[in-house]
Amino acid sequence: MTDPLHVGATIGILGGGQLGRMLSVAASRLGLRTHIFEPGANPPAADVAHRVTTASYDDAAALTAFGRSVDVITYEFENIPTSALDLLEALAPIHPGRQALATSQDRLTEKTFLQRLGLQTAPFADIAAMADLTAAIARIGTPAILKTRRMGYDGKGQARIMGPDDAAAALADIEGAPAILEGFIDFSHEVSVIGARATDGSVACYDPGENLHEAGILRTTTVPARLTPALRTDAVLIAAKILNALDYVGVMGVELFVTPQGLIVNEFAPRVHNSGHWTQNGCIICQFEQHIRAIAGWPLGDGMRHADVVMENLIGEDVNRVPDLAKTGAAIHLYGKSGVKPGRKMGHVNRIVKRA
Amino acid sequence: MTDPLHVGATIGILGGGQLGRMLSVAASRLGLRTHIFEPGANPPAADVAHRVTTASYDDAAALTAFGRSVDVITYEFENIPTSALDLLEALAPIHPGRQALATSQDRLTEKTFLQRLGLQTAPFADIAAMADLTAAIARIGTPAILKTRRMGYDGKGQARIMGPDDAAAALADIEGAPAILEGFIDFSHEVSVIGARATDGSVACYDPGENLHEAGILRTTTVPARLTPALRTDAVLIAAKILNALDYVGVMGVELFVTPQGLIVNEFAPRVHNSGHWTQNGCIICQFEQHIRAIAGWPLGDGMRHADVVMENLIGEDVNRVPDLAKTGAAIHLYGKSGVKPGRKMGHVNRIVKRA
Repeated sequence: MTDPLHVGATIGILGGGQLGRMLSVAASRLGLRTHIFEPGANPPAADVAHRVTTASYDDAAALTAFGRSVDVITYEFENIPTSALDLLEALAPIHPGRQALATSQDRLTEKTFLQRLGLQTAPFADIAAMADLTAAIARIGTPAILKTRRMGYDGKGQARIMGPDDAAAALADIEGAPAILEGFIDFSHEVSVIGARATDGSVACYDPGENLHEAGILRTTTVPARLTPALRTDAVLIAAKILNALDYVGVMGVELFVTPQGLIVNEFAPRVHNSGHWTQNGCIICQFEQHIRAIAGWPLGDGMRHADVVMENLIGEDVNRVPDLAKTGAAIHLYGKSGVKPGRKMGHVNRIVKRA
Repeated sequence: MTDPLHVGATIGILGGGQLGRMLSVAASRLGLRTHIFEPGANPPAADVAHRVTTASYDDAAALTAFGRSVDVITYEFENIPTSALDLLEALAPIHPGRQALATSQDRLTEKTFLQRLGLQTAPFADIAAMADLTAAIARIGTPAILKTRRMGYDGKGQARIMGPDDAAAALADIEGAPAILEGFIDFSHEVSVIGARATDGSVACYDPGENLHEAGILRTTTVPARLTPALRTDAVLIAAKILNALDYVGVMGVELFVTPQGLIVNEFAPRVHNSGHWTQNGCIICQFEQHIRAIAGWPLGDGMRHADVVMENLIGEDVNRVPDLAKTGAAIHLYGKSGVKPGRKMGHVNRIVKRA
């Protein structure tokens, strides 16, 4: 364990979207600066960062200068090119580490990893070609979902298979990318646990939230989630198991399906997570600060939930509701994005339903 | 009333200290950018601002460029040169307005204003020369405090007078600056109200906090303050009276002495206030966001207190306690200042004592 980062130290963040923006704000509370690396122009995080580098992930000179200017590196999305990581890890520690990234970047690796930990997942099969898919459908059955192994998010890179006849179309849909077939899970609802692990190995999890998706995009997270006391404990134990197995440092989001057979792990994301945004108004220390504390070598903070909260994403035109929302008691969080597009996350709202 | 500021609009902030820093963070939550104007190098607010201008307040070109780049102007301290304000107000609206600034910049004007509103103040006298001081001491009595009319903060520009013999030394102490003599108030404790007024004239006040000073610098603020229900109401009414009389837009801190004769107004500050930092962890909408909402033409947010909080300033070497404080459940707020000096505000800590 290295010394904790002190006032004036700089955290490098790969990605300048809303997660990078809120990480920057959290870093500032601890006296730390951020340097954002982002290929796109005018990223949301730039409004609140000490420094911004606009360059692509194959620009070795820009990556090198970035890596040399920071004390630790983190990221707001998991699909960072391996070549960039290879270059950067020689220059500054990267948290969460390579193993977590490699595991979560690939759905096949991720599911295999989870199974080896003894955790329940959906039945799955490795799909490289049509023959694999035919065999997998015969074994797993339908309905099932074909998902690309890499680069999927917000429901992208997925095709639903309702019967064997859909197989060819589904494979065409994902354009022949390496994929897995996932069996259908009969779940009542989805919950997620936002867990954190510090450099000293201590773990702290937030109370699980219940997630509602629309068109593959998170719509609301409600805390507390509907869970029996036993499942609530299970959810936290599952997250802790994953965090420890990866010798993880930082915050992770773990999505779980609630079924009559217990909790089934859907996936985990090695970063702060949309379903943890409620912590900004429901806890003393939010997920963004918890992540910064972990990667900066600080002790984890108090993540106890002090309120019942409903987080609602403002997606696309939802942002036009802000003038009305501003008149309510809700806490509004906008990302500073000027272009409204369907499906684009523009902000979110946290409503306190009840004090815990 | 003008239209509220929208995503991407820029708030100009005069002063780049910790208040500007925390105002910047609050602005980002509402999708707004900040442009900091600050004569000193590497100001704390620069870490989280979209843009920073480093220039002096007599640099007309820099002020003009700054004023043209922003949609509204606010400030984190009240001693802004009049010439700078004259130039800026032609370029963008300034909130809080000139009347509030002019009134609070001068202790004589401020006390006179408060008296005209029918509010209780300490007995005071205008002191231009030794003859005034002698007469004032005879009328007001001792102990009393000689204070410069302008530029006083954190106990600077003040001299205590325990008896008539101290008069000459006190006058020498403040180097002949225009001053007022203030009679001693026999108060049990000091409280402050953080009040906000929106462009539509609506007013919202936070629950009063109780302040403890050491060597003229705020040490702790505790909410709730020790106040009878009647005095608690009085405190809010006094703040509202001042806000309305000044047709004020923004957040104001009003310091009050609690005495057997009721509340006596010490002074008010036309800005976010150190004694309101507890709101960051005790309310859904903190004083910084409330100020941004007001000056941006938004409706005021929910300032209801949901916890009992003790805010403690980290002054000078106090910042060395951060590693230990980080292990507690406290919320730490550091200002990113690298140089530790005695009396310098380095950060603060909010401790939740009890959920309200």
